[in-house]
Amino acid sequence: MIKGIFAPIPTPFVDEEIAYDKLGENVAKWGSTGLSGLVVFGSNGEAPYVDEDEKVEVWAYVRKHLPKDKMVIAGTGQESTRATIRLTKKAAQAGVQAALVVNPNFFKGSMKEPALEKFYRDVADASPIPILVYNMPANTGLNLSSSLVVRLSDHPNIVGVKDSSGNIVQISEILRGAPKDFAVFAGSASFLFPAAVMGAVGGTLATANVVPDLCVKLLELAKQGNVKEGAELQKSLLALNSVVTARFGVAGLKAALDMIDYFGGLPRRPMMPLGESEKAEIRKILVDLGVKPVA
Amino acid sequence: MIKGIFAPIPTPFVDEEIAYDKLGENVAKWGSTGLSGLVVFGSNGEAPYVDEDEKVEVWAYVRKHLPKDKMVIAGTGQESTRATIRLTKKAAQAGVQAALVVNPNFFKGSMKEPALEKFYRDVADASPIPILVYNMPANTGLNLSSSLVVRLSDHPNIVGVKDSSGNIVQISEILRGAPKDFAVFAGSASFLFPAAVMGAVGGTLATANVVPDLCVKLLELAKQGNVKEGAELQKSLLALNSVVTARFGVAGLKAALDMIDYFGGLPRRPMMPLGESEKAEIRKILVDLGVKPVA
Amino acid sequence: MIKGIFAPIPTPFVDEEIAYDKLGENVAKWGSTGLSGLVVFGSNGEAPYVDEDEKVEVWAYVRKHLPKDKMVIAGTGQESTRATIRLTKKAAQAGVQAALVVNPNFFKGSMKEPALEKFYRDVADASPIPILVYNMPANTGLNLSSSLVVRLSDHPNIVGVKDSSGNIVQISEILRGAPKDFAVFAGSASFLFPAAVMGAVGGTLATANVVPDLCVKLLELAKQGNVKEGAELQKSLLALNSVVTARFGVAGLKAALDMIDYFGGLPRRPMMPLGESEKAEIRKILVDLGVKPVA
Amino acid sequence: MIKGIFAPIPTPFVDEEIAYDKLGENVAKWGSTGLSGLVVFGSNGEAPYVDEDEKVEVWAYVRKHLPKDKMVIAGTGQESTRATIRLTKKAAQAGVQAALVVNPNFFKGSMKEPALEKFYRDVADASPIPILVYNMPANTGLNLSSSLVVRLSDHPNIVGVKDSSGNIVQISEILRGAPKDFAVFAGSASFLFPAAVMGAVGGTLATANVVPDLCVKLLELAKQGNVKEGAELQKSLLALNSVVTARFGVAGLKAALDMIDYFGGLPRRPMMPLGESEKAEIRKILVDLGVKPVA
Repeated sequence: MIKGIFAPIPTPFVDEEIAYDKLGENVAKWGSTGLSGLVVFGSNGEAPYVDEDEKVEVWAYVRKHLPKDKMVIAGTGQESTRATIRLTKKAAQAGVQAALVVNPNFFKGSMKEPALEKFYRDVADASPIPILVYNMPANTGLNLSSSLVVRLSDHPNIVGVKDSSGNIVQISEILRGAPKDFAVFAGSASFLFPAAVMGAVGGTLATANVVPDLCVKLLELAKQGNVKEGAELQKSLLALNSVVTARFGVAGLKAALDMIDYFGGLPRRPMMPLGESEKAEIRKILVDLGVKPVA
Repeated sequence: MIKGIFAPIPTPFVDEEIAYDKLGENVAKWGSTGLSGLVVFGSNGEAPYVDEDEKVEVWAYVRKHLPKDKMVIAGTGQESTRATIRLTKKAAQAGVQAALVVNPNFFKGSMKEPALEKFYRDVADASPIPILVYNMPANTGLNLSSSLVVRLSDHPNIVGVKDSSGNIVQISEILRGAPKDFAVFAGSASFLFPAAVMGAVGGTLATANVVPDLCVKLLELAKQGNVKEGAELQKSLLALNSVVTARFGVAGLKAALDMIDYFGGLPRRPMMPLGESEKAEIRKILVDLGVKPVA
Repeated sequence: MIKGIFAPIPTPFVDEEIAYDKLGENVAKWGSTGLSGLVVFGSNGEAPYVDEDEKVEVWAYVRKHLPKDKMVIAGTGQESTRATIRLTKKAAQAGVQAALVVNPNFFKGSMKEPALEKFYRDVADASPIPILVYNMPANTGLNLSSSLVVRLSDHPNIVGVKDSSGNIVQISEILRGAPKDFAVFAGSASFLFPAAVMGAVGGTLATANVVPDLCVKLLELAKQGNVKEGAELQKSLLALNSVVTARFGVAGLKAALDMIDYFGGLPRRPMMPLGESEKAEIRKILVDLGVKPVA
Repeated sequence: MIKGIFAPIPTPFVDEEIAYDKLGENVAKWGSTGLSGLVVFGSNGEAPYVDEDEKVEVWAYVRKHLPKDKMVIAGTGQESTRATIRLTKKAAQAGVQAALVVNPNFFKGSMKEPALEKFYRDVADASPIPILVYNMPANTGLNLSSSLVVRLSDHPNIVGVKDSSGNIVQISEILRGAPKDFAVFAGSASFLFPAAVMGAVGGTLATANVVPDLCVKLLELAKQGNVKEGAELQKSLLALNSVVTARFGVAGLKAALDMIDYFGGLPRRPMMPLGESEKAEIRKILVDLGVKPVA
């Protein structure tokens, strides 16, 4: 069973080209933390901005440079079933251990539950590696209901879900309905603790790129039933989480990394770089958290 | 400080007229449970369907018939500031201990944060009793942000918030930012446990009309840090909660009460009564929960 | 058949009390224009902020002071069926010719089409005066579908609809499906011309308070098939329409009236007064339109 | 200036592979109608389901087989600026006359107006062919405001907009603010007539695949100011339009084509084929319209 804290890493670019040296340095640092693994080409990896060939190369690179005891999960969801299957197979060949598959979402009117259910079953049937369902309504404009996820949990090759909706009731409903060994992951550090208290076994968290070991500790506190300390740590992470996710997006995450001895850099266009006041806000949050900013 | 579990009671009607005998019997039953009090004319009381004079009479009636150690909280939010103040004063004269005030919401484009903040401050300034802010986006079509609620928490006569959004991050942000003695209430039994784990001191829960002592127990488990039992009990209440709130509304709540020796009856029009299949679903949920249905 | 241009008038307040002298002066001015009548206590009348007794008095006052050849339509929609029927009967007794009924909307989850359809049929059955359905999704958070409105158009006492959605396809669908004598009104001057070209017989327009005769002319151009002039006039009214509706709301409408020799004044709280820059913007738009501002 | 009626053609697949023979037959038929041209890989072409190499090949094929007096417009919008520029250049090399560019939309929180404006300017700067902005909120979950489109209309290589929002006010605002030679296209046959009455010079319409010459006639009636006939024809097209767009999507469009001597076939997965009752509904609509169904 997949569990623990995963960082969905950003893709480092210099002049919009993938910077492998920077990627290698980052991976080495994450490799020495308590993270269970990395997600490569989740939303934070700017997956929709990166070509298929680039992705395959990056997966192989990260797999090669990350310690073997840590997992690599590949984000492989595409709009069509055939492209998703093709990319998932390539990810498997590149050596990753599982695929995180966001649902097709452009044709919103056509992506009703039967279409989405068939999509996931078709992909899981064809995939050589286990599939994690990825629910990300803020980006997709669609929500995967708890009843859909529970139905999918009966497929032997669908082993879990990353839910980024922040809907704790929906997460609880999945935990109630799915088998015990179906891995439910919080999709954001802003609700990791309550989700873990309800039974989530891990998190795939933008914030885990920046403060991996605090995220690991937060999950531990939930497992121990240490409600008092857990609630305090959870609250202390809210401000950081908000600037590396909803408020400033991938550009915010990259700016935060640039302040703490990782390489962040700029996103590909059309994502805009942060302004100075936004950077100052992030810097202040890092100082308040006790993460000493280098830059 | 207000805390514990409150039932936002439905208003009993016979032929669309308030049935005081039924109300009295219900109140007597709730009065013998572990509830901390009742909310009278929250959404579940069909507040928008009940005239001002009727409300005042019901508040006085409930206050008279409920044991003195239990609080009565009156739902007094109206669209205009002046009507809200007038009704809150009448509620105070009728003997209630606090007012739960939903935000004005018809003129959505005009109800920006400065207008909403001034509304609450004006009401709180004029009210003889403490005010609880009531955030109910599913009905109002507006959300009260955590930053707005935190700002309002500095007013000496605004003593807490009932948040029915189910947004656990927003609830956590309020708990982080507001003073320790600002009472945060979960607005639904579907997320009472995670909210309480994060620091909420109580709940105002439609489900507490039906299974008051299970809700009281769920809150206790959170206070004790009993994560394992708490998560189980939380999950076991999800199905009941959904049929007495989002899925079947007030008609669902009333139907459930009719099945367990309380009086439910029908809502005022235009709310529709439930069909037989919907009632059968509720009955099955009550059996599954071990609440033996009488009808 | 009801047709032509109606102004949904704002309610004049001085110190939040109804100012009948100001109302009388305004009504006299509107009475000398090409308007077909006035709507009293539509959204622009701040209906949700005004008590039932006040409304009845204002309806009688306006009916008495408006020339007999112009209609008075009363906004009478309330959340409950019984309150809507009661208020509609009082409006009829006060002498108005028709009632404009917004749909109940607080309990959004319970206001499904069967409930809304029954609501309108119950009200129309009980009303001594004809009913116009009022669809205002921006305020109610619900949309009345074209199929619902078409079904309602078969009721002998439901004589038309005011559609403020701005959805020209929905309006076209109603015109296709309803009987020829069912009156379809544009709910905003921003789409009066295309709606009239498709077959709408009139408009109930905030903008008609400010420039009634331009609105009358725009409707005439559509009837004449004068597409070239009509499109130009339509475009020239967009800026004014936006500041007296969506952008600045009732406060914007009142500020515009104060600039052109009508009385506007302030809305009741919690609506906020406009700032100086917003007023300057309105003033400029009025000058651009050739409506010479007095203030 | 680009104007007239364009059909955004579906891509014919047999066993999910592009069927060039079927494509050739369809193109020959459309080539003999009054259409001004074809859009290849708009939404109806299942653009997100088709690989870059496939698209280039199809553009070249259609350009070769369509009469020279008819335009080919390529849908080239991708999530990243660099991929959009690359694909637009390839489309130009394939011989198309213009590019229709949907806005990036996955990272909704980051796609604020400055990012979107820069995206379109960067693409237009780099493109060898003219750019049409494509606003499709139902699929993208984002709306391009009239003020943004008006700002973009000053770029010499941005020559028009296809607006599929159906918001006639927004379309009117663009027509008011943009230069006279900026081409505004209705994005759906459901509002072609009112849009054209306001000044739109054409339409890019799924329905134009099925009844091209009726769409051409509808546009003509608007140009002639024939309001009476135009409104009737507009209303008569609503039912067909709804089943080939919002209600049944691309699968509905393909099914309709299969009924009238064009090749439709099935969409790529995960789009689902229609059921029999949905097909029967389409067939009835085609009969009612007087388009004799073959199948």
